[in-house]
Amino acid sequence: MTEPALEPCDLLIEAGWVVPVEPHGVVLEDYAVAVRGDAILALLPRAEARARFAAAQVVSRPQSALLPGLVNAHVHNPMTLLRGVADDLPLMQWLQGHIWPLEAQLIAPDFVADGIALAIAEMLRGGTTCCNENYFFPDVQAATYRRYGFRARIGLPIIDFPSAWARSDDEYFDRATEVHDQWRGDALVAMAFAPHAPYTVSDASFERIRMLSDQLDIPVHCHVHETAHEIDESLRQHGQRPLARLERLGLVNDRLIAVHMTQLTDAEIALCAQRGASVVHCPESNLKLASGFCRVADLQRAGVVVAIGTDGAASNNDLDMFGETRTAALLAKAVAGDASALDAASALRAATLGGARALGLDHLVGSIEPGKQADLVCVDLAPLETQPLHHVISQLVYATARQQVGDVWIAGRPKLRERTLVDMDAAALVANARQWRERIAAIRIS
Amino acid sequence: MTEPALEPCDLLIEAGWVVPVEPHGVVLEDYAVAVRGDAILALLPRAEARARFAAAQVVSRPQSALLPGLVNAHVHNPMTLLRGVADDLPLMQWLQGHIWPLEAQLIAPDFVADGIALAIAEMLRGGTTCCNENYFFPDVQAATYRRYGFRARIGLPIIDFPSAWARSDDEYFDRATEVHDQWRGDALVAMAFAPHAPYTVSDASFERIRMLSDQLDIPVHCHVHETAHEIDESLRQHGQRPLARLERLGLVNDRLIAVHMTQLTDAEIALCAQRGASVVHCPESNLKLASGFCRVADLQRAGVVVAIGTDGAASNNDLDMFGETRTAALLAKAVAGDASALDAASALRAATLGGARALGLDHLVGSIEPGKQADLVCVDLAPLETQPLHHVISQLVYATARQQVGDVWIAGRPKLRERTLVDMDAAALVANARQWRERIAAIRIS
Repeated sequence: MTEPALEPCDLLIEAGWVVPVEPHGVVLEDYAVAVRGDAILALLPRAEARARFAAAQVVSRPQSALLPGLVNAHVHNPMTLLRGVADDLPLMQWLQGHIWPLEAQLIAPDFVADGIALAIAEMLRGGTTCCNENYFFPDVQAATYRRYGFRARIGLPIIDFPSAWARSDDEYFDRATEVHDQWRGDALVAMAFAPHAPYTVSDASFERIRMLSDQLDIPVHCHVHETAHEIDESLRQHGQRPLARLERLGLVNDRLIAVHMTQLTDAEIALCAQRGASVVHCPESNLKLASGFCRVADLQRAGVVVAIGTDGAASNNDLDMFGETRTAALLAKAVAGDASALDAASALRAATLGGARALGLDHLVGSIEPGKQADLVCVDLAPLETQPLHHVISQLVYATARQQVGDVWIAGRPKLRERTLVDMDAAALVANARQWRERIAAIRIS
Repeated sequence: MTEPALEPCDLLIEAGWVVPVEPHGVVLEDYAVAVRGDAILALLPRAEARARFAAAQVVSRPQSALLPGLVNAHVHNPMTLLRGVADDLPLMQWLQGHIWPLEAQLIAPDFVADGIALAIAEMLRGGTTCCNENYFFPDVQAATYRRYGFRARIGLPIIDFPSAWARSDDEYFDRATEVHDQWRGDALVAMAFAPHAPYTVSDASFERIRMLSDQLDIPVHCHVHETAHEIDESLRQHGQRPLARLERLGLVNDRLIAVHMTQLTDAEIALCAQRGASVVHCPESNLKLASGFCRVADLQRAGVVVAIGTDGAASNNDLDMFGETRTAALLAKAVAGDASALDAASALRAATLGGARALGLDHLVGSIEPGKQADLVCVDLAPLETQPLHHVISQLVYATARQQVGDVWIAGRPKLRERTLVDMDAAALVANARQWRERIAAIRIS
C-alpha cells in the first residue's frame, strides 16, 4: 500500500476563518486556500489541505480571517499627494478654487507616478488589491500599477477641456485608443473609458465613447448624478436629467460604471437595474462634499450591482476601504430608515464582488473560488479592539481597522507580509511625499 | 555671571506639533508641554522649554502631534463584551430581542468590571482619556476606572424597572446617593445622575433627580430624542415631546447632558441654547440603528455645546473616538447640506473641550492649558497614510487612525508608551474576553 501522492502547490494559506464572499455570508472555520501560480487551486478544511497538498510555502494565520482582496471602485490616486490640501468646502468651490488651479500646475507624469505609488502602498497596507483609476496620463498610470504588480482598471480620460494630457477632443480619443492598444491583454492592467462627467463632456464625445466602448468591449467609468446642482444644470442646458441624457446617447448599459448617484428617482433605479448599469457608492466623499445621499438599499433591492469607492484622497481623505465599507453599511441604514439595510455581509460583498462585477472583473476576482486569481487578504482579529469575537463578518465590517491587515497577495504574489510591504520602500515613499508637500506649498503661496 | 536656575518639572513632552484646542484651530510647531505632578505647567516653544526646565523625563516626538486626550461623552462600557453580538437590527428589536434578554443574565459586578477593563484598554490605545459612563453597578464602575487611573464621569442609573442593581425606585435612589457619597472628592472619578430615557423614567423619578442633582451639583446624563418613535410614544402617553416634558419637570438646564437628540425642532435647539443644556452626538450609533440625524451644525450655530460619544460597543461597534469624530465631521456636512459645516478644528474641539464642557469637567481637561490636568495624547503622523502633511488638524480628523496614537498620559501618569499599555496586560484582557465569548454563546444557544 502506498500513500496517494500529494498534489504540488505554491502556497497554502491556513486561516482561523475564511470568508469567501461567494457563497454569501458564509464563514468557514479553520480553512485553507491552496494557490498555484496566480490562481486559487482549492478552498478546503485545514486538516484536509495538509493531507492533500505539498505546498512550497505554508502561511499559517490561526488568529486571522482570510478574505478576497478589497476592490476600490473609484479612485483618483495621483491626488493622494493633495490629501488634506483643501477641506470643508462645497464641491464646486473646492474644485474651482483649489483643486483645479493646483492641478493645472501639477498634472504631469511625475505627479501621476508618485501619487499612484504612494496610493498603492496605502491600498496594500489596507487590504485593497484592485482599483478603478480615473485621472490623466493613463499610460503612466498603467506603467505604475504594472510596476508594483497591482491590479487596476485604468480610465482613459475624456473631457471637453485641454489638459497636459491632451489638447483637443480628437487628441483625447487618439491617445485613449493608443494607450488601450498598448496594454491590450495585460494580466493585471485593463482599460475603461472615463468621460469625466455629464457636465464636462459633450453629446458628440459621449457618442464616440459609446461606439468605441462597444467596439473594444470595455467599461465606461463616469461621475453621474453627484449633486443636485448637476441635475439642475443639465435640465437647464439639455432639458434632461443627466442619466436620461446618457440613456438617449445609448450609454446606460451593462458597461456603465456610474459613480456617486446621490440623486435618484425610482424610475432611474429601475432603469439601471433593467440595463445592468453598476453604481459605485462613495459615501465619505458624498458626505464630506455635502453632495447628497445615495439610495443604496433601494438600488440593491432593485438588483443593481453596488460597488464601493473611496474617491480621491483629496476628498476623503484616505484610501481606506475598511473604513469606507463601514461608513457605507452605517449610512445605508439611516438613509433607508431601516437598521437592517446593507447588513455586514452585504457590505463586505459590495466591497469585493460588487466592485469586481462593476469593473467587469468578476471572472477574475472578488471572491475566493477555485480558478479565480489569488488576490487575498489576511486580517488579524486578535487585537483587543475586535474582541470578543461573536461574529466574524460583523467584526470585519463594524470594528476592524485597516491596520489589522497583516498579509496581502495579488495574483499569488506576496505584496504585504506581516504588515511590511514586500516590494515597496515605505520610508522612501514618505520622503518623496514630503518633497511634494514642499513643492505644493510653494505653488499655494505663489 | 551665573545661569538662571532651571525650574524643575516631572515631564517634558516635545512634539512636532501641539494642538492645544484652546485657542481654537491653532497648531504650534515644534512646541513642548511641561508637566509637574498631575498638571500642565507650561506650553512653550521647544527651544525655550529646554532652556527653562530641568525635566526628570523628556519624551521627544518630532513626528507626532500632541493633543488633549479625547473625551468620549457617552458610553456603556460593560457592553464592550457584547461587541457585534447582534447587528443590523432596529433599536427596539435590538434592545428587546437581543440586548436586554442577554443583559438580564449577565449584569453583575464581574461583567461590569471585565467589560470596563477591556474598554479602558481600547480607549487608551485610541487616545481617549475620559469617558461618560452609563450602566448598572456604578460602584463597580468607579472602582474599575480608579484602579486603572482612567478619568470618568459615572452615571448613577435610574430606571423604572428592577435590575440586578436595584429592585425599586427607592432602592435606585438610595444606592445612587450612597455611591455618590462614597466617591465624593475623588480626583479622577466623579458622578452624574443617569436616568435611562424619558420612556423608561417616570415624572416622579425625574423630579427627584432634579432636586438631588441641584443639591449635589452633579450633571444629569440621559438619552433624549433618540428616535422618532420615542417622540410619538411621548406624545401619546404624556401629550408632550420628551424635551418639553423634561422642561416641564425642570431638567432642561446647564446640568443636562442630552444624548442623541436626532429629533430637534428649531424651538428645541433654541431652548437648549438658552438653558445651557449640552448635546452628545453619537453619529455612528444613530446611523447603525437608523435612529435619525442630529442637526449638529444648527446646534453649534445656536451656541449649544456639542460633544461626541461612541455609545456602547454593542451598537457601534467600537470605542474609536478618532473614527467617531471623523464620522461626525463628515455627516454634519451632508445633514446641513453645507460642506463647511463642522470643519476639522470644530470637530476636534467637540471631541475634546466640547466633551469636557458637557461633562462639567472643562476646568480640568479638554485643552492643553497651564493649570489643567495633564491628560495628553501623542499621535504619530509619520505613517504614509497621513502623508503628505498639508494641514495637521485636517489630517488628524480626516485621515488619522487611532492606531497612530503612540503615547497617552492621564493626570501626568503614563498609560500608553509607544503603543504599549503601561499598567494593563493586553494579552490577559484578550484571554478574558474569549472566556466571556464562550459564556455569552452558551446563553444565546440556551
